[in-house]
Amino acid sequence: MQDKIIQLLEEKKFALLKQELKEMRAADIAEVFDELDKKNSVILFRLLAKDEAADVFSHLASHQQRDIVEAIHETHLDEIIEELFFDDMIDFLEEMPANVVKRVLASSTEEERKLINQFLNYPENAAGSWMTIEYVDLRKEMTVKQAMNHIKKIGLDKETIYTCYVLNNKRKLEGIVSLRKLVLFDDDLLIADVMNDDFIAGHTLDDQEEVASLFKKYDLLTLPIVDKEDRLVGIITIDDIIDVIDQETTEDFQKMAAMEPSEEEYLYSGTFALARRRIPWLLLLMVSATFTEGIIGRFEDILQAVAILAASIPMLMDTAGNAGSQSSTLIIRGMALGEIELEDYLKVFWSELRVSFVVGAALGLLNFLRMMIFVRAEIGFAITVSVTLVLTIMMAKVVGGTLPIAAKKMKLDPAIMAGPMITTIVDALALIVYFNIASALLGL
Amino acid sequence: MQDKIIQLLEEKKFALLKQELKEMRAADIAEVFDELDKKNSVILFRLLAKDEAADVFSHLASHQQRDIVEAIHETHLDEIIEELFFDDMIDFLEEMPANVVKRVLASSTEEERKLINQFLNYPENAAGSWMTIEYVDLRKEMTVKQAMNHIKKIGLDKETIYTCYVLNNKRKLEGIVSLRKLVLFDDDLLIADVMNDDFIAGHTLDDQEEVASLFKKYDLLTLPIVDKEDRLVGIITIDDIIDVIDQETTEDFQKMAAMEPSEEEYLYSGTFALARRRIPWLLLLMVSATFTEGIIGRFEDILQAVAILAASIPMLMDTAGNAGSQSSTLIIRGMALGEIELEDYLKVFWSELRVSFVVGAALGLLNFLRMMIFVRAEIGFAITVSVTLVLTIMMAKVVGGTLPIAAKKMKLDPAIMAGPMITTIVDALALIVYFNIASALLGL
Repeated sequence: MQDKIIQLLEEKKFALLKQELKEMRAADIAEVFDELDKKNSVILFRLLAKDEAADVFSHLASHQQRDIVEAIHETHLDEIIEELFFDDMIDFLEEMPANVVKRVLASSTEEERKLINQFLNYPENAAGSWMTIEYVDLRKEMTVKQAMNHIKKIGLDKETIYTCYVLNNKRKLEGIVSLRKLVLFDDDLLIADVMNDDFIAGHTLDDQEEVASLFKKYDLLTLPIVDKEDRLVGIITIDDIIDVIDQETTEDFQKMAAMEPSEEEYLYSGTFALARRRIPWLLLLMVSATFTEGIIGRFEDILQAVAILAASIPMLMDTAGNAGSQSSTLIIRGMALGEIELEDYLKVFWSELRVSFVVGAALGLLNFLRMMIFVRAEIGFAITVSVTLVLTIMMAKVVGGTLPIAAKKMKLDPAIMAGPMITTIVDALALIVYFNIASALLGL
Repeated sequence: MQDKIIQLLEEKKFALLKQELKEMRAADIAEVFDELDKKNSVILFRLLAKDEAADVFSHLASHQQRDIVEAIHETHLDEIIEELFFDDMIDFLEEMPANVVKRVLASSTEEERKLINQFLNYPENAAGSWMTIEYVDLRKEMTVKQAMNHIKKIGLDKETIYTCYVLNNKRKLEGIVSLRKLVLFDDDLLIADVMNDDFIAGHTLDDQEEVASLFKKYDLLTLPIVDKEDRLVGIITIDDIIDVIDQETTEDFQKMAAMEPSEEEYLYSGTFALARRRIPWLLLLMVSATFTEGIIGRFEDILQAVAILAASIPMLMDTAGNAGSQSSTLIIRGMALGEIELEDYLKVFWSELRVSFVVGAALGLLNFLRMMIFVRAEIGFAITVSVTLVLTIMMAKVVGGTLPIAAKKMKLDPAIMAGPMITTIVDALALIVYFNIASALLGL
């Protein structure tokens, strides 16, 4: 389907192309833009029917939106902006350069301008920045029948009609009522009697992660967002929450791999943008790792005497790092999902102690056998490496399991206490253990 | 709120407790069970009103469900099972021991039994295992008004009424129509004219990850699932898809940290269950890491001559590992989100080459200055370490960026090509580079 579009575009068969586009879903059309250069993007966009254009536009990545905005005529842009849902417009404006924002604001009414500015000012990770204002508002005094008629009249332009919001004349949120109830309940009941006044609501400055967990816990489709005076300012819908979940997870992945998080797509990020997010943590960890230099330096005479001791250092470091990553990953993810709480500190400690003993003993034994049978190492050397391995795995797992919780306790993001950090910490401990056991066992 | 419940439970103030429970949401009550032992769990569960009990039950973890099932009376269990939505019942039965499943099947009708068995047989990661059967079915010949009346009659027991399914008399899915349209459109239009016959549907054996990406791409609230003859067998709702997304992400995290994935919650997993999932990969990586032993063994004479060379090995390994993790994490996540495709292989390769040069040069330079100024190392040694660092970072990033794509190309899960695997591979390369540069530069 997409290949066909691209082919028609290249052959400049625009009439056929227009026909073809009418049959397609906006999300599928938007995907075609990933394969096009700027010039063809603009051509394809111009071929879209008016009502389809806004829908496709809201599905595009922000760099694609920018390309199109720069190329299309002002009146055409105004038409698209008008068709966008409010939250899609805000998403779009947040990523645009100042001149585009100005152009959009210039063609808005005074009231719209105020609202846009208010929404653009919400912090990026706050509930406010995900809201839309196209909701259905009802009054307590309405009957179910009146409410349904009201919905029929105004519903077409609303992002959802499945949850309706009951406001008083100061726009204070008094209750919510689902369309399900309106359909299933008797026509002449009062909204006041069918609405739910014990509803869940969020605030504009709530963190998006908290909002997402409300959706998960209570299986919500929408969440009303109120201001300090409990006035309804907007609603968040479940489709945006899925984006929040993906975004938060991506952030965790990036932090756990020692990077500054970014929302930019990899393929559309510049070299220096990518490098800048990677250097700081890498540098910090590199400098921390040089502690190990000092430790090895201190034991240089032992190493001089038995140079082969160095041979096992990488294996010990790698295994320690991997063992620690396993534990820290499980704990960080468990905390992100709310399965592990701060109070579980001791439970995690004991669990990791037991598990690490089992894992360490198994790997230590297998390594001992490996060194004796395949490497034909001296028994003292084999014991040194294997005992170090057991102790290192245990340290790595206990540190890996508990440090993320400690980080959270200190109001830091647990995700920074992932593999890279744990490896750096445990490596130094492992070397000290290694050389001490070696000098005791090998009589150095 | 939860503390109050626990306190009332301990003080055996059951009448007050019952009152309190009536005011609470099922999801909040379910959370209380996390804090209770088996005995108190059963007491609390018995205090729940009949209609609330099933709702709370569906929110419990499977080990809690098992505790309760084992303790409550058979007729009470039957009542709860009857109240559960079909997908929640299947979720529950999947985790129960055979005797519980038998008990439930024994008290079902012949038809129910057939259906339950069919659903229990869908593979765990298939769309079929997430379906529910409580949907609204309509006929093409109905008018909008007739459809609305039909919904009023049967809607109460349906998991959702917001999307309705138009079936022919062989239960073949002919179209879908949203409640939104039914409400907004004229009463006397025919369903055949308002329904969407160009709908998106899944199949029972579709992978849950593919299904989740359909929901994301098309902003769906529900997805119909059909069999090979296009007959509707069930629907999947968005709340289950959020669970799928969380579960798939957790799997990725676990695989990327070199563990066998598991759905069991950390705090409720036994020591040996946890250990068993960690040992295989750790062992494989440990054995692979012993390649480095051989490499160091081969350069033992160099090491004997300049023992201090060993001092930088951990720092080089750690930095290589971290640099590789950064790249592989970005690529694995990008592929999971569908932002990076197989065809982007070359783009990723070039991007990582450029980025790794910038990162490597920055870190190499800083390391050189550090060694000259703070460690007062010999210049030959400082150059050896710094040049190795640059080359190692470049190798780590290029390997880390491209191996996940190669894995996917070979139909393997890209997530296994994460930090641990990349570290193991790059460590060996790094050592070879290190000793070769050392012997060339230091004239060994």
